[in-house]
Amino acid sequence: MANYIGKFRVKGPEKVTPADFPTAFTGDFTNKSEAAESLEANVKRMSDLQDMMYAHDKWAVLLIFQAMDAAGKDGAIKHVMSGLNPQGTQVFSFKQPSAEELDHDYMWRYNKSLPERGRIGIFNRSYYEELLVVKVHNLIKYQKLPDQVVNKNIWKSRYRQIKDYERYLFENGVLVLKFFLNVSKDEQKRRFLQRLEDPAKNWKFSEADVRERRYWDDYQKAYGEAICNTATEIAPWYVIPADKKWYARFLISQIIVDNLEKLGVHYPKLDDEQLSKLAIYAEMLNNEK
Amino acid sequence: MANYIGKFRVKGPEKVTPADFPTAFTGDFTNKSEAAESLEANVKRMSDLQDMMYAHDKWAVLLIFQAMDAAGKDGAIKHVMSGLNPQGTQVFSFKQPSAEELDHDYMWRYNKSLPERGRIGIFNRSYYEELLVVKVHNLIKYQKLPDQVVNKNIWKSRYRQIKDYERYLFENGVLVLKFFLNVSKDEQKRRFLQRLEDPAKNWKFSEADVRERRYWDDYQKAYGEAICNTATEIAPWYVIPADKKWYARFLISQIIVDNLEKLGVHYPKLDDEQLSKLAIYAEMLNNEK
Repeated sequence: MANYIGKFRVKGPEKVTPADFPTAFTGDFTNKSEAAESLEANVKRMSDLQDMMYAHDKWAVLLIFQAMDAAGKDGAIKHVMSGLNPQGTQVFSFKQPSAEELDHDYMWRYNKSLPERGRIGIFNRSYYEELLVVKVHNLIKYQKLPDQVVNKNIWKSRYRQIKDYERYLFENGVLVLKFFLNVSKDEQKRRFLQRLEDPAKNWKFSEADVRERRYWDDYQKAYGEAICNTATEIAPWYVIPADKKWYARFLISQIIVDNLEKLGVHYPKLDDEQLSKLAIYAEMLNNEK
Repeated sequence: MANYIGKFRVKGPEKVTPADFPTAFTGDFTNKSEAAESLEANVKRMSDLQDMMYAHDKWAVLLIFQAMDAAGKDGAIKHVMSGLNPQGTQVFSFKQPSAEELDHDYMWRYNKSLPERGRIGIFNRSYYEELLVVKVHNLIKYQKLPDQVVNKNIWKSRYRQIKDYERYLFENGVLVLKFFLNVSKDEQKRRFLQRLEDPAKNWKFSEADVRERRYWDDYQKAYGEAICNTATEIAPWYVIPADKKWYARFLISQIIVDNLEKLGVHYPKLDDEQLSKLAIYAEMLNNEK
C-alpha cells in the first residue's frame, strides 16, 4: 500500500493554502469498509506503542486538532483514540477563555494542560485559535494587552513565539503533531443540512455555525498563514483531506503510528544488577511463611 | 543623589562574572539609617504605582530573585515588598520539584505561577535554578529527558529557551526583572556563623548550607554564565551588591520603581460617553426611593 503521508505534510517554509490540498482524496481505498481494517490495525499498533511510551516515561506526544466546524474533529478523536488506554491519554477542549485565563498571557492555559511524560495529550482546538478566531474577529482588543505591544507585527510575533515554544517542547521531550482537517465548503454545507434534518443530530447544530460560515474565506486565509508560518521539521502540520471522514481517520492514525515508531520508545531495560536482584525477590516471595 | 542602577545592570551580551561587581558597595550612603528614608520613599512610590497597575490591568511584572544561601533574598522580599497590597502581589518559592512537576517540561511549574495582569509576581528562586543547581550537581539525569535531547548543547539550548520565553512574556505584557544578590564568600561565612551562634537564628541554618558552600566556585561560574547568556535589553539582570543588606534593599526598591515608572501605567480613562453616564447614575442614586 502506498504511503501518502508526505503528500499532506507541511514542514515549512513553503507557502501553501488549504486550497492547495485535495479535500476528497482517499488514497488506495474506494470506500469505508476497505479502510476499516487498516484503521483497526493502526489503532492496535498505537495502543502497543502507547504502552511502551508509558513504561519508558520520557517522551510525551501532543496532538493538536484544528478545523472548520463540522470537519470531523470530535469524530476523529473518538474513532482514532478510543483504543488507547485512558490512563495514558489526556484530552483538553478549549472554549472561550475565562476571565482568569484572559488575565494571563495567551499560552498560559494551554501550558497548564500539557501532557505528562509517557502520555499522549490531545488538544481539541489549541493555541492556534490565537491566530485564527482571534485574527478573523479581531479579538486582540479583549486580551488586555498593553498598548506598547499591540502593533501590526503582532501576528508575525505570534508565529515566532509559537515556533519557539514548539521547539522548546521538542527539546524537552514533547513531540508536537498538528492536524488541520481540511473539509470543503460544499461538504460543510451538506453536513450542516444533515444536522438540521436529522432530529438525532439537531443538538450538534448552533446558529453560530451558519454565522461563522460567512467568514469561510477569512478563515481559510488565516489557516494558510498559520500553517505556513508555524510548520517546522520537528513540529510539522498535516493537512488532512476530510471530506471522507473514514479516510481522514485512517490517515491520522497512520501519521500517529509513523511518528510514534520513530521516537524509539521501549520498555525500560534492567541492568545486570537489577536483573540479578529479581531472582532474590522471587526467592523471598517463595520462602514467605 | 547619584543613580547607580546602570552600574549593576547587565543587558547582554557582555561577558561578566559576579566577581566583576562589588559586593560591599553602598553608593552615597554610609550606614543603614541614611538609606532607610530613601527605601521608605521608594516603597511608598511602588505602592502607588502598584495601585495604578492594578487598575490599568494590562501590565504584569515578574521579579526574579536568585542568590547564594544567606545572601538576603527572603529579607529583601520582606522589606521591599511589605508595603505592597497583597491583593496585587503573588509570591512563589520554588523548592525541589515534585513527581508531578518532574513529569512535565521544566518550565511547566513556573508557567503556572505567572502573575496575572495588573499584578506583581515574585519568584523566590525560579527557572534559573535549571541553569544553576541542576548544572552544578548534574541533576539532568533526574529530569527524565529522552536520550535524543540530552547532549552537550543542553545548556546553550536552555539559555536560548529562556531568552525566547522572556521575550514572549514581554511581548504579552509581562515585564521580567532579574535580581542576583551578590554576596561575598566571607560575608556568607559570617552570616552562617551568626545563625549557629544566635539561638533565635538557629532554625535558619541547615547542614546543606555548609555542604553547598563547598561548591561556591562552581555556583559563581554557573551564575556568571547564566547571567551573560540570558541578560537582554527587555529582561536585564541586576547584580546587586548584597554584603550590606540595607543597601541591597534600597537598590532593589530603586530599580523596581524606575522600571514601573517606565511602563506608563495609569488609572483607566473614561471616554466622553462613559463620563456623561456618570451623571445619570448619580441622578438615579439620588432619586432612589
